[in-house]
Amino acid sequence: MNPNISSPNFNVILVEPKYGGNIGAVARVMMNFDQKNLYLVNPPTLNDECYTRAMHATNIIENAQIYPSFQAATEKIDFLVATSSIENLNDKKHLRNPLTLDQFTQTIYDVQGTIGLCFGREDYGLFNTEIAACDIMVKIPTSTAYPSLNLSHAVTIMLYSLFNHHYQPIHPQRKMGNIEKQKLQEYFIKLLVTIDYPEHKKENTEILFKRLIGRAMPSTWEYHTLMGVFSRTIDQLNQEKKTKSFEY
Amino acid sequence: MNPNISSPNFNVILVEPKYGGNIGAVARVMMNFDQKNLYLVNPPTLNDECYTRAMHATNIIENAQIYPSFQAATEKIDFLVATSSIENLNDKKHLRNPLTLDQFTQTIYDVQGTIGLCFGREDYGLFNTEIAACDIMVKIPTSTAYPSLNLSHAVTIMLYSLFNHHYQPIHPQRKMGNIEKQKLQEYFIKLLVTIDYPEHKKENTEILFKRLIGRAMPSTWEYHTLMGVFSRTIDQLNQEKKTKSFEY
Repeated sequence: MNPNISSPNFNVILVEPKYGGNIGAVARVMMNFDQKNLYLVNPPTLNDECYTRAMHATNIIENAQIYPSFQAATEKIDFLVATSSIENLNDKKHLRNPLTLDQFTQTIYDVQGTIGLCFGREDYGLFNTEIAACDIMVKIPTSTAYPSLNLSHAVTIMLYSLFNHHYQPIHPQRKMGNIEKQKLQEYFIKLLVTIDYPEHKKENTEILFKRLIGRAMPSTWEYHTLMGVFSRTIDQLNQEKKTKSFEY
Repeated sequence: MNPNISSPNFNVILVEPKYGGNIGAVARVMMNFDQKNLYLVNPPTLNDECYTRAMHATNIIENAQIYPSFQAATEKIDFLVATSSIENLNDKKHLRNPLTLDQFTQTIYDVQGTIGLCFGREDYGLFNTEIAACDIMVKIPTSTAYPSLNLSHAVTIMLYSLFNHHYQPIHPQRKMGNIEKQKLQEYFIKLLVTIDYPEHKKENTEILFKRLIGRAMPSTWEYHTLMGVFSRTIDQLNQEKKTKSFEY
């Protein structure tokens, strides 16, 4: 993966967070998603709870850049992103006309330079003046009944979305190919023959198996395991039949 | 929106969580994403921190169903989903061959019946026997350097993904249509003429404006506001020109 694409220079900016625990939780989830630049505007004491909840990410806390004001923290950042759970219900007011998180994730990787992701106070969010200073506002979709996310949960969702956008499964399983699919179906039919499955039910049951496998999309290894079960079963059934025919 | 599609019967099952605070944080985020059924397997005391972190979601804590074992909690659930940050690196072992969260979200809404989302212990996750009892395993994509998510963060990401799958912006902004786009471009060109913009730069600047608007995709209301600015500017420039021509 191109590291320039997968890890642009995101900076997580917490604006006047009140609780050390939340800062620690944010640091941990930043490490979970390969981010390391934490900016803190006028934070509380970085107490024991902060370090406990950071778990393996204490480095991020120790290297956090601390600023006395929103303006000081953001003046050198190229592209500022405001987050808020409150959006305008009126198209004519531009301040809180948001992008959804999906829209944001799909476009932000085109931006060059440093990007600041701003998260507001636990109780009040970002002030209108701070949102106005940002280039765009992003809203994380939530229930209208209770839209207000915990601070570290909001950061978690945004960083997950950004990380997931470029995620490739570590070892994408090779899916069973068409020949293997036919072979598996052939063995299932062989099994039906071997157990003297009623002729009038056969066609429907064959289709059922085909559909089941179609939905489950087995990997190559799952195919081999299933084939092992089928062939062993068929062999032993045939063996038993032979023994029985000797007995008579 | 069809409520049957947007809110299937998901149950969040926390298996032997250690900290009341995490349970509270999970309850809060459940309410953020319109979920209400919380199952607790062998939980700790639901202490003050649990209720404090639940914020407006104390109802979910009070109505949580408490079970002495994983088996007791899950025996009546139709479809069980294991979550884990640890996946097999070997296709031949089937236990921890996961779906990614995206793959899960795209298919789970086809399942009928009650769905149990199982989250393991903070320090150990789900046991192998518990994962084996589940119908599928889901892995939330994370950094390979530090894959272990905080419990409430894992729940947050999964519930967000499920919620977001059916999310429609509350008031999708009407995007400016083609006629409006042409009108805006026309006014920009009119402005260039009015300010006697150098002829040899004109074409390129017109294209720049077209591209800029194309990327920004203005809403109808943004269009009207911009048109207001343009027409007022052009009018005043023309007015000034007239006045000046009188002066000479």
